[in-house]
Amino acid sequence: MTVRYERKGRLAVITLSRPEALNALTLPMIAEVESLARRAEADPDVFAICVTGEGRGFCSGLDISALADHAAGRAPAASAEAIARPERRMMFSALPTIAKPVIAAVNGVAAGGGFILAMMSDLRFMAEGANLITIFSRRGLVAEHGAAFMLTRQVGLSRALDLLWSSRRIDAAEALRIGLADRVVPSENLLPAVEAYVEEMAATVAPCSVAAMKRQAYAYLEMSFVEAAVDTARLIDESLAHPDAAEGAASFADRRPPRFAPLG
Amino acid sequence: MTVRYERKGRLAVITLSRPEALNALTLPMIAEVESLARRAEADPDVFAICVTGEGRGFCSGLDISALADHAAGRAPAASAEAIARPERRMMFSALPTIAKPVIAAVNGVAAGGGFILAMMSDLRFMAEGANLITIFSRRGLVAEHGAAFMLTRQVGLSRALDLLWSSRRIDAAEALRIGLADRVVPSENLLPAVEAYVEEMAATVAPCSVAAMKRQAYAYLEMSFVEAAVDTARLIDESLAHPDAAEGAASFADRRPPRFAPLG
Amino acid sequence: MTVRYERKGRLAVITLSRPEALNALTLPMIAEVESLARRAEADPDVFAICVTGEGRGFCSGLDISALADHAAGRAPAASAEAIARPERRMMFSALPTIAKPVIAAVNGVAAGGGFILAMMSDLRFMAEGANLITIFSRRGLVAEHGAAFMLTRQVGLSRALDLLWSSRRIDAAEALRIGLADRVVPSENLLPAVEAYVEEMAATVAPCSVAAMKRQAYAYLEMSFVEAAVDTARLIDESLAHPDAAEGAASFADRRPPRFAPLG
Repeated sequence: MTVRYERKGRLAVITLSRPEALNALTLPMIAEVESLARRAEADPDVFAICVTGEGRGFCSGLDISALADHAAGRAPAASAEAIARPERRMMFSALPTIAKPVIAAVNGVAAGGGFILAMMSDLRFMAEGANLITIFSRRGLVAEHGAAFMLTRQVGLSRALDLLWSSRRIDAAEALRIGLADRVVPSENLLPAVEAYVEEMAATVAPCSVAAMKRQAYAYLEMSFVEAAVDTARLIDESLAHPDAAEGAASFADRRPPRFAPLG
Repeated sequence: MTVRYERKGRLAVITLSRPEALNALTLPMIAEVESLARRAEADPDVFAICVTGEGRGFCSGLDISALADHAAGRAPAASAEAIARPERRMMFSALPTIAKPVIAAVNGVAAGGGFILAMMSDLRFMAEGANLITIFSRRGLVAEHGAAFMLTRQVGLSRALDLLWSSRRIDAAEALRIGLADRVVPSENLLPAVEAYVEEMAATVAPCSVAAMKRQAYAYLEMSFVEAAVDTARLIDESLAHPDAAEGAASFADRRPPRFAPLG
Repeated sequence: MTVRYERKGRLAVITLSRPEALNALTLPMIAEVESLARRAEADPDVFAICVTGEGRGFCSGLDISALADHAAGRAPAASAEAIARPERRMMFSALPTIAKPVIAAVNGVAAGGGFILAMMSDLRFMAEGANLITIFSRRGLVAEHGAAFMLTRQVGLSRALDLLWSSRRIDAAEALRIGLADRVVPSENLLPAVEAYVEEMAATVAPCSVAAMKRQAYAYLEMSFVEAAVDTARLIDESLAHPDAAEGAASFADRRPPRFAPLG
């Protein structure tokens, strides 16, 4: 078992578990992360998903065996689905399509494929001693997977180029300053901080709202304002017909905690 | 009169004035804000527009009566214009089309519809004790109006998701750090800071330039670089044929204040 | 010689050299900067390009003679190429197409055309006392060249409007805070900091990787995620067939410095 799955309250925790290799990814591990995220998405008791690493690293990138497959052009490129849907060749590109929050708890170094895993997660909570390295330019590679697309939208153009070109080590304080990290906490508080954030949301906000907002935020990156307005107008109509809108209004009027419908 | 209008020099101040309800918005108030912004746009003596709230709040969102209309799918969705132009259903979506700067002076809490009003303004000046809350997820709603579209372009993808999902309270210092606020000043200096900013611009820069730049900035969000270049080349030709370009060059050469054409 | 060219190790330095006029740009100087950048791009010994100014200013904008040509609608608009390719009318729009990093070393004031030169460079290193001013609104002009397009993507919508509208002076500390500057260093360390950054990259990362990443970052600003994935999948296949990918893997395995192919 090189990827572990456990539940902590309403949070599903997916842990890369090859600590002796700083959790370097094999191809089965990449598939397993996606599969476990789908399992958590389907479980109505799960509000959000956390991806983290065992030991002192978050994920050091592709394992040497996966690198050899990658260099030989083998999987995941070889699958018929990947040929038909090139975005599926982009590592961890399933995560933005999961209808629940995916939070990377970056406990140590995240490099290469580990950097991609952090970037394809919706939010990044970092331990104070953790750091991020893109690594591709040191290996003679391009900005692989979603790195260039996501980085420009997350930190702006010049910071994206600086991180991609130099492959320099970004510590947690800089990551917070430039918008790569959403929270930085002492190492021992990393998972508790994710748990507290998710428990607070699970007690106060609607899973259907959270799912709609995730779809909106990613989709509207690629839309004009008018296109986004057409989509939003449709979503508003749908949401008002859903019992959660009435429950939101009623719980607010009654000053009591809401009981929103689970999602799964 | 639940929305007041007054002139302070070259600044038009639109004040939400239901302090006993933290300036919660009724549907007539929403229409009145737009109508007064159009009045200020048409007045050649007005250089810029400030939207603010009376009392200790900026705007707590939709009033309970407006919420009921909203939940029933009544106005503004019901209008023929809204059906033909879905972007008009997006609350305060007229503000980015006003040919003058619209500055939100966020004097206290801005939640829900108040958050939208702040986000659809071009700039946000915040009092030190003010704060922002998206609120939609607590009510079982989606990211309504321009929230998702504007937030991702203003603060990046993960910060937008964090604000929308959690509906947590963002204080002025965090708003400044992440790019939601453009200025933070002590409460008693809030309106004076907006006035000083606008008086300095009114004395030194061309209203036609300001109007063109506003159109450019919003339009180029949705264009490729080549499309933006085609538009800019046309605007450059137009601006050079306008007397303000000659006045800009002459006033610079003569080291005297410029006398630019008013806009209205 | 109003633009100088020199080599410092793997760095090509292009210096605006009219210090008595704060390096105000004549039309021949604009053409010369582009021509020298192309020369550096073609030189396999050059890893990156630095643009800087002699004396206490970086570049104060267009020279009075260039302004007169500009106001009369003369060059560069008059050329057949500019009519056919409007993006070529945008000053310094060639720089993002150079297949090597272009770093502005902003040693003093960068205003108007000098602001554009800084913005059209990929990265901006600033001296502590340097500052940026957009200037167009004070001259009755629109957001010329790439200013509006690049600023919204670099600092977000409201900060772009604030800088364009007010033409206010942005010091180096604010530029760093809002993402306009990538590094701020004491004045005497400015060129050494650029040299050290480039030497570190030249010793550790592949020029072909850097070139691909630059194309990706700019192109993906205008693409959907799926379009970017199609492009990335093709680039991954090309990069894996290039000797640099094998050298990257081998040098990593052997724990030795890589010997990547030069670009020129």
